[in-house]
Amino acid sequence: MLKVEHIGIAVTSLDVSVPLFEKLLNTPCYKKEEVESEQVQTAFFQQGETKIELLEATGPDSAIAKFLAKKGEGMHHIAFEVADIYAEMARLQQEGFVLLQETPKKGADNKLICFLHPKNTNGVLIEICQEIK
Amino acid sequence: MLKVEHIGIAVTSLDVSVPLFEKLLNTPCYKKEEVESEQVQTAFFQQGETKIELLEATGPDSAIAKFLAKKGEGMHHIAFEVADIYAEMARLQQEGFVLLQETPKKGADNKLICFLHPKNTNGVLIEICQEIK
Repeated sequence: MLKVEHIGIAVTSLDVSVPLFEKLLNTPCYKKEEVESEQVQTAFFQQGETKIELLEATGPDSAIAKFLAKKGEGMHHIAFEVADIYAEMARLQQEGFVLLQETPKKGADNKLICFLHPKNTNGVLIEICQEIK
Repeated sequence: MLKVEHIGIAVTSLDVSVPLFEKLLNTPCYKKEEVESEQVQTAFFQQGETKIELLEATGPDSAIAKFLAKKGEGMHHIAFEVADIYAEMARLQQEGFVLLQETPKKGADNKLICFLHPKNTNGVLIEICQEIK
């Protein structure tokens, strides 16, 4: 894996949390993007080579809505950039990790993404991602 | 803030989790370090400019032991590197964030560190850190 591409944080309201994280990180939110298929609205902040991605649910079936109901606001996932998502999915499966997608899906920020089941990763939801070119 | 210096992950057993994360991240653990004052044993992995820091409690009073008892294994904190920890602590306090230390304390990996109360940061435990020179 190449780097920590982003850290996803589940929040109740971007209207509240975007100004909060702008103060916290001392940097402006540079992009907001809705991912309709995932029922999430996202907001991005750059910190070195890594992004902080705030995630607000836009519908009750969103994974973020379920996470918030169960655990409340907080860290949701870590995304690692990979050079070849198909090769990395094959490698991880070979190592015994359980992939939540059989083929990569389109995520926010022009990325192909795949999640790993957190039961095999010490409760940490891991995403691998690769930029679509 | 300069970059995501590390992401802290609370685990029950480094003996189990170090080989797991070596497989997951496809990179060896390059350092283990005990921080006696915090009652934690740490293990580090490099991913781009960011480290993944696994944290195992070495005593029942460790913050990690309490976290594990309450929430189980998973993401524990995000640490941002800052150029001047004293100036950054003053800035954050000015912005209304609550610092968990009045003065920086010595953390793992030759760092001065300070945590922010997660009640003001959407449930995310934030650490700021600066290398001791």
